[in-house]
Amino acid sequence: MKTSDLTTPALIADSKILETNIATMASKRPGRELRPHVKAFKSTAMAKKLVDAGHETFCCATIRELEGMVKAGFGSDLLLANETLDAKRIGELLVEGNCRITVAVDSLETIDAAVFAGVKEVLIDVNVGLQRCGCSPDEAGFLSEKAKASGLKVRGVMGYEGHLMHDPNVRRRTEKTQESMELLILAHEAVGGDVISGGGTGTWECNQAVTELQAGSYVLMDGDYSKLDLPFKEGLLLLTTVISTSKSGYAVLDGGLKALSVDSGNPKLLGEGEVIFCSDEHTTITNGSWTVGQRVGLRPSHIDPTIAKHEFIYLVEEIEESLDAELLETLKIDLRGW
Amino acid sequence: MKTSDLTTPALIADSKILETNIATMASKRPGRELRPHVKAFKSTAMAKKLVDAGHETFCCATIRELEGMVKAGFGSDLLLANETLDAKRIGELLVEGNCRITVAVDSLETIDAAVFAGVKEVLIDVNVGLQRCGCSPDEAGFLSEKAKASGLKVRGVMGYEGHLMHDPNVRRRTEKTQESMELLILAHEAVGGDVISGGGTGTWECNQAVTELQAGSYVLMDGDYSKLDLPFKEGLLLLTTVISTSKSGYAVLDGGLKALSVDSGNPKLLGEGEVIFCSDEHTTITNGSWTVGQRVGLRPSHIDPTIAKHEFIYLVEEIEESLDAELLETLKIDLRGW
Repeated sequence: MKTSDLTTPALIADSKILETNIATMASKRPGRELRPHVKAFKSTAMAKKLVDAGHETFCCATIRELEGMVKAGFGSDLLLANETLDAKRIGELLVEGNCRITVAVDSLETIDAAVFAGVKEVLIDVNVGLQRCGCSPDEAGFLSEKAKASGLKVRGVMGYEGHLMHDPNVRRRTEKTQESMELLILAHEAVGGDVISGGGTGTWECNQAVTELQAGSYVLMDGDYSKLDLPFKEGLLLLTTVISTSKSGYAVLDGGLKALSVDSGNPKLLGEGEVIFCSDEHTTITNGSWTVGQRVGLRPSHIDPTIAKHEFIYLVEEIEESLDAELLETLKIDLRGW
Repeated sequence: MKTSDLTTPALIADSKILETNIATMASKRPGRELRPHVKAFKSTAMAKKLVDAGHETFCCATIRELEGMVKAGFGSDLLLANETLDAKRIGELLVEGNCRITVAVDSLETIDAAVFAGVKEVLIDVNVGLQRCGCSPDEAGFLSEKAKASGLKVRGVMGYEGHLMHDPNVRRRTEKTQESMELLILAHEAVGGDVISGGGTGTWECNQAVTELQAGSYVLMDGDYSKLDLPFKEGLLLLTTVISTSKSGYAVLDGGLKALSVDSGNPKLLGEGEVIFCSDEHTTITNGSWTVGQRVGLRPSHIDPTIAKHEFIYLVEEIEESLDAELLETLKIDLRGW
């Protein structure tokens, strides 16, 4: 089967780039020094490739992701790198056994929810500058004591410097990441434990403070991360078909807002031309020459919410060479939803 | 079961508003004068409500939608209001029988694809000003002749004035819609047939030219359409849980870019407060007072790509009164994908 046999729109990925990205990361962050973030690709088939590369611990953002990873046999050390008040389903997974699940907590309420549901291990989630989850660094010790007093094991701390992840200036990104991680280290001194978890694709190299890096997007990258000076290459493409052309100089592709996310900007065309706009099921492009029926590739600007719109990623030998490549493997996106 | 039993994020909808929106539209556009657009809600359970309101013809944007509608028994007169080069699956549906499917064509290539696949009936899709599909009005007669010469029945024309759909100035929207529809009427004079199909929720009243209106978003509306002077009310809500609060004055909800689309702007909070930003699985809000564990509702800005991210919509008696309402019905979003 070839990509030309696929119904469009369809997500295809370059297997060589995927392999190289995974190997590049594993060479600098081998084994447990990387805790790949499943939220980026929501696929146990992709997780399997990371297991094959030597990683055995994973981050999840949702309980659905935890459930799927345990079911697929990748539950030996999972971190819900997110707060939840609904830990009951995690407790049920733990009762079924054959898995280890650590949950991020940042408040008395999330500690209580973890205890109530039968969770055994937590990390104290610390705010290191991103306006999102995490307690303030000076509360970390207090919450850790409360968690321990409730019978929880506190494995350490986590803190995600997401506000620095896309800074194009590498020196500033590095400096700010160091400042940000100083907060996490201070919190860790108060909390203790083996784990300092944080970071992501954008700070994979400049974050030297964490014991484990929470990166996921690096596997196939996206337009937004590709603006940075990273060694990882873009390998994901929305394959579309030109369904209409106009003498006014534009053409229309059969994939749009339901097939890729534009929160980080419009997709980029593989090859000539520019995107004018995306609508629900279409993308209108210009400044190029296309014929009806031609296949055209779009590079998504943001990998995570784009993959979450699809049932499958089709792996091909090499995308750049031909849009009509042989299909090597189909990765099911089986961890969508909540 | 109540909304408090739902895992968040979850889409809930107000059944009274849904009922009123459907009735309001049906009173002005009864039966076949409306051809509801399935793309807005991607659910045969929702389509059933429109059948119950007297509509029996539907628009689809994708072949998956056509297949699902036929399987659900709503295939008596379906229009693929979109071009396709991949009509083979439509041909297979027609061979299986018990359905009537008309396909939009705007080029010799799409006519050939329809003929090749065994499609019997088409509409000539005419560009009425939106930079998307549709032949130029003066080509419509030529394409119609070509289609007829190829053995296709040409039922008429369609033209979608999507570029006018969200104009907040009702007088300008009306005038521009009339100008736009004059192009469609000219094309219809050259093409013939019973059908002049077009329009949408934003032009439901000012478009008097079409024999059938292609509206879908009106059933539950969204933040973008609610800026207009329409009698339809917003009835869709993303139910989320506050998972973290900060002394710096913000709170974090457990639903973000994977649960709602921000292509038309950030969601609005039901009740006090404002959205600062959405990230993959979170929305950070401010200017209000929230406690961890509290349920908070977000009004999506764009209904179509938001619903397409979910497996279900949960219908409740009335959203405004309480976020802990009894669940009346679960609508499966069964027409996602392509």
